[in-house]
Amino acid sequence: MNVPQRYDELKTRLAEIHDLSKVTSLLSWDQAVTMPPGGAPARAEQMATVGRLAHELFTSPEIGRMLDDLAAYEQSLPYESDGASLIRATRYDYDRATKVPTELRGEMTRVASLARNAWAAARANSDFAAFKPFLQQTIDLKKRYVDCYAPTGDPYDVLLDEFERGMKSAEVRRIFSELKQAIVPLIAAVAERGEAVDDGCLHGDFPIDRQRDVCLAILRRFGYTDGEWRFDPTAHPFASNTSLGDIRLTTRYYADNLAPSLFGSMHECGHGLYEHGISPSLERTPLCRGTSLGVHESQSRMWENLVGRGRAAWRFFLPELKKAFPQLGQVDLETFYRAINKVQPGLIRVEADELTYGLHVVLRFELEQEMLSGTLALDDLPEAWNARMKSYLGVDVPDAARGVLQDVHWSLGYVGYFPTYVIGSIVSAQIWEKAVAAMPDLERQFEQGEFLPLREWLRENLHRHGRKFTPKETLQKVTGSDAVQVGPYVKYLTAKFTEIYGLS
Amino acid sequence: MNVPQRYDELKTRLAEIHDLSKVTSLLSWDQAVTMPPGGAPARAEQMATVGRLAHELFTSPEIGRMLDDLAAYEQSLPYESDGASLIRATRYDYDRATKVPTELRGEMTRVASLARNAWAAARANSDFAAFKPFLQQTIDLKKRYVDCYAPTGDPYDVLLDEFERGMKSAEVRRIFSELKQAIVPLIAAVAERGEAVDDGCLHGDFPIDRQRDVCLAILRRFGYTDGEWRFDPTAHPFASNTSLGDIRLTTRYYADNLAPSLFGSMHECGHGLYEHGISPSLERTPLCRGTSLGVHESQSRMWENLVGRGRAAWRFFLPELKKAFPQLGQVDLETFYRAINKVQPGLIRVEADELTYGLHVVLRFELEQEMLSGTLALDDLPEAWNARMKSYLGVDVPDAARGVLQDVHWSLGYVGYFPTYVIGSIVSAQIWEKAVAAMPDLERQFEQGEFLPLREWLRENLHRHGRKFTPKETLQKVTGSDAVQVGPYVKYLTAKFTEIYGLS
Repeated sequence: MNVPQRYDELKTRLAEIHDLSKVTSLLSWDQAVTMPPGGAPARAEQMATVGRLAHELFTSPEIGRMLDDLAAYEQSLPYESDGASLIRATRYDYDRATKVPTELRGEMTRVASLARNAWAAARANSDFAAFKPFLQQTIDLKKRYVDCYAPTGDPYDVLLDEFERGMKSAEVRRIFSELKQAIVPLIAAVAERGEAVDDGCLHGDFPIDRQRDVCLAILRRFGYTDGEWRFDPTAHPFASNTSLGDIRLTTRYYADNLAPSLFGSMHECGHGLYEHGISPSLERTPLCRGTSLGVHESQSRMWENLVGRGRAAWRFFLPELKKAFPQLGQVDLETFYRAINKVQPGLIRVEADELTYGLHVVLRFELEQEMLSGTLALDDLPEAWNARMKSYLGVDVPDAARGVLQDVHWSLGYVGYFPTYVIGSIVSAQIWEKAVAAMPDLERQFEQGEFLPLREWLRENLHRHGRKFTPKETLQKVTGSDAVQVGPYVKYLTAKFTEIYGLS
Repeated sequence: MNVPQRYDELKTRLAEIHDLSKVTSLLSWDQAVTMPPGGAPARAEQMATVGRLAHELFTSPEIGRMLDDLAAYEQSLPYESDGASLIRATRYDYDRATKVPTELRGEMTRVASLARNAWAAARANSDFAAFKPFLQQTIDLKKRYVDCYAPTGDPYDVLLDEFERGMKSAEVRRIFSELKQAIVPLIAAVAERGEAVDDGCLHGDFPIDRQRDVCLAILRRFGYTDGEWRFDPTAHPFASNTSLGDIRLTTRYYADNLAPSLFGSMHECGHGLYEHGISPSLERTPLCRGTSLGVHESQSRMWENLVGRGRAAWRFFLPELKKAFPQLGQVDLETFYRAINKVQPGLIRVEADELTYGLHVVLRFELEQEMLSGTLALDDLPEAWNARMKSYLGVDVPDAARGVLQDVHWSLGYVGYFPTYVIGSIVSAQIWEKAVAAMPDLERQFEQGEFLPLREWLRENLHRHGRKFTPKETLQKVTGSDAVQVGPYVKYLTAKFTEIYGLS
C-alpha cells in the first residue's frame, strides 16, 4: 500500500501540535530559569493559550476521521514500524483526550490553579485545614474524571494510566508490598548501626562556580555536549527540551553541601539522555518522548544511583573532584563512597536517600488509594500520614508542613503520579541487570571514565524507541519481560547497604 | 451604550493572538541568547507553526464580522478611548492582513528563506551576482504585494506603510533631501579637520565582565530593574519582551573597545523603556507595542545619542567608569566626550557614527525606490551604491561584502524598512526639544545621575499610548505637530559637531 495522503495530513497536523507542546516546554523552562519575575502573570496566559490551542487542534473531529480513514493502512504496516506506531499511539491519545468533556477539563484547570496557591499558603503556615477543602475538590474532580472512562474495577487504574499507561493498581500494590516487606527491616537494621557512616566530607565550603564546573565535567562524560545541551541553576531542578538537538538540564546548588548538585545533575542528565537518544525519525511526532514517567525515572535513577553512587564511577571522578576542592585531599574512595550512600530516615521525600526513598512513595500511594475509595476521610489524613511515617521510617512528624503538605502534586491534581518514581527505581535495576550481562566490563569502563558504552547500549535498546511502544512493550524489549519485578532492585539495595553498614 | 458581548469576544480573540506573538518573541530571543545551536532546525518549525496559527486566527472571517458588528459601538466611544482605539487599529490590521492572498504570503516566506541563505553565502564571497537573482525575485514579489493594495500614486508608499504607517514616499524624499543638503557639507567640513578628535581612550583592555557591570549600572539609572528586565550578551543586539513585566535587552562586547557595549546597551534600553512604559490597560492587546519602527527608533536614538553621547550624562558616569577601568584615570570629561562623538566616514552602516549614519540610510532609500520603479537595473546596483558612497561620504567601496551586500534586510524582503532608522533620529530631536522645554533643568538632573524624570515625561507623553494612535497622531501628541521636521535634528547635529570640530 502506498503512503496515503491522509497519513501525510495526520503527520502534518501532529507535527504542529508537537511544535506547540515544545513551545510550552520552552515557556516553562524560561519561567523557571531566565524570566524576570515580573513576567509571571502574562506567562500564565501565554501557557494557557498555547495549551488550549494544542488541545483544540488535537481533539478536533478531523483527527478522529483521519484515524478512522487510516485503520486499513495501519493494519498493512508492521506493528513495529514508525507509521503503525504513530497511528496506534495517536488513537490511544485521541480516545483519552476526547473522553473528558471540555467543561470538566476547564474545571480541573481552574481548581488546580486555586489549589496550587492555597497549598503554598497552607504549607507556609503548616495549616492542613486550610488546604483540606481544595484537596476535597481535587479528589471529587478525580472521581468525575475516572467516571469518563470505562470501569476497570479499580478507579485508581484510570489515574495510574495517565502517568504509567497499562499499569494496574493491583500490580502496584503487589510490587510495593514486596518492596516494603524487604526494605522496612533493612532500614531498621541500618538504623541500629547508628552513626556507622560519616558523610562529613560532603559538608563544608564548596564554591558554587566550582561545583558547576565539576558537574559539567561529569555530564560531559555521560554524553553532554555544548552544541546540543544546556545546564542552568534553578530552584526546583528538572530536565526539559525543545527538540532532540536542544536538551536542557537544571540543578540546584548549596554552597555548604556538595551532594545535591552532584547527584541532582546526574539524575536530570538521565532524563536528558533518554530524550536525546530518541530516533530522529520520530522528531516532531507525539512519539518523540519517553514512553512513561516510570520508564523515564528508570533512566534518571540509573545515572544518579546505579552509575553515580557506585564505586567504579568515583574511582575515576574522585581525583577530579579533589582538584576542584582541595579540602577533600585526604578523603579516600571508601570514605567517599560510604558518605554518598549514607542512610538517614527523614521527613522529606525529595531529601531522602536511595534506601528510604521508596517508602515515602509507598505511603503516598496507599493514602491516595484510600482517599479515592473513601476509606480514609480527609480529616484523618494527617494522622494516617504521621502514623505510617513512624511505622515505615521510624520518624516523628512534627508538623503538616514537613508531613502531609510537603509535596505540590495533589494541589495540581496529580493523583496517581507518585508511584512512577519508585516504579522507575525498580525498573532501573531490571535494566541494569541486562546491561551488566551484555557488557560484563561496564564497571571497569566507568573506572576509566568511559560511560558512553552504557549510554549507547541504552540508546539502542531503549531510548531510540521513544513512545513507539507502551511501557510494558518497551520493558519487554529491553529486559525480555513485560513485568515490573522487584527482585533485582531489592537484591541490589540489600547487597549494597548490607556491605556499607556491615549487616549480617 | 453598554459594552457589547461582541467586544469581549474580540478582545479575547485578540488576547490569544497577542499571546502567540509574544511566544514568537520568546522563541526568537531564546534562539539568539540561550538555545544551543542543535535546536535550530526544530526552532524554525516551531516559529513557523506559531506564526501560521496566529495568522489564521487573525485573518478568519469571524474577526471581520466582529469588526462589522462593532462599528456602531466604536462610534459611540471617544476616539481616544482604549476601546475605540483597539477596534480602529484592529480594523486597519485586518484590512492589511486579508488583502494579501495566502499563496503570495507563502511565496514571500519561501523566497525570503532561500534569499536569506543565498545572501549569507554571497556576502561571505563578496559575490553580488550570486545574490542578484534572489534580489530580483524579492523585488518582483514586492511589486505583486504592492498590487494587492489600492494604488496611491507611488508603489513605495505601500511598502513604507508596513513599517511606518501613514508615511509617504514624497515626504521621506523631502525630509531626506533636506537632511542630505545639511549633512553632506558638514561631514566634508569635519573631514577637512582630519584627526582633530582622538578616541584612543575607548580602545584598550576592557574585561567584558566589568563592561557588563558598567552597562548595567547605567541601565539601572535609566530605569532597568532586576524584577522586570534582563540583560544578556548576543551576536546581533536587539531588544525584546514577552510582556510589560519582562523586558529583555541584549548587547555585544568587544574586549578591546568600550564603545559598542556602552552605546549599544543604551540604544536597546531606549526600545525597552518604550515598551515598558505602555499603559498596563493595553496588555494582551495589539495596542501593546510601539506605534511604529520610526517612533521606536526615536526612543533608542534618544537614549543612545541625545542622552548617552551628551556631556551631562558623562559628568555623572565618567567617575563610575574610571572605577571599573582605572586606565581611564587621566582622561578628562572633555576628552572622553569628544572621543565618544568622533566622526569617521566609513563603509558599514551599523558601525557608523551619529553624524554619518543618516547618509547610509538615505542612499539605501534612494536605491530601493529606483529598484522598485525599475529606473535602476539590478546589474547596475553595485556601481550605483559605490558612486553614492563616494559622493555622500567620500569613501571608496572595495568590495560588495562591505558595500551593497552588507545588510540582511533585502534578503528578508524588508524593503521600505531602512528609512525608519533615520526618521527615528529626526523625531528624537523633535521630541527632545519638547522635553527640554518642559524640563529646563534636564541636563542638570543628568549630571546628578537622575534620568527618571526624562523617562517619566516620555512615559506620560509618548510611551503609555502604545499603538493606540497612528505614528502621526502620536507625534502630534508629544510634539504638537504631526509632521516629521528635520530642523531640530539638523540644528542639533550642526551645533554639536561644529563645536567638537571647531568649525566656523
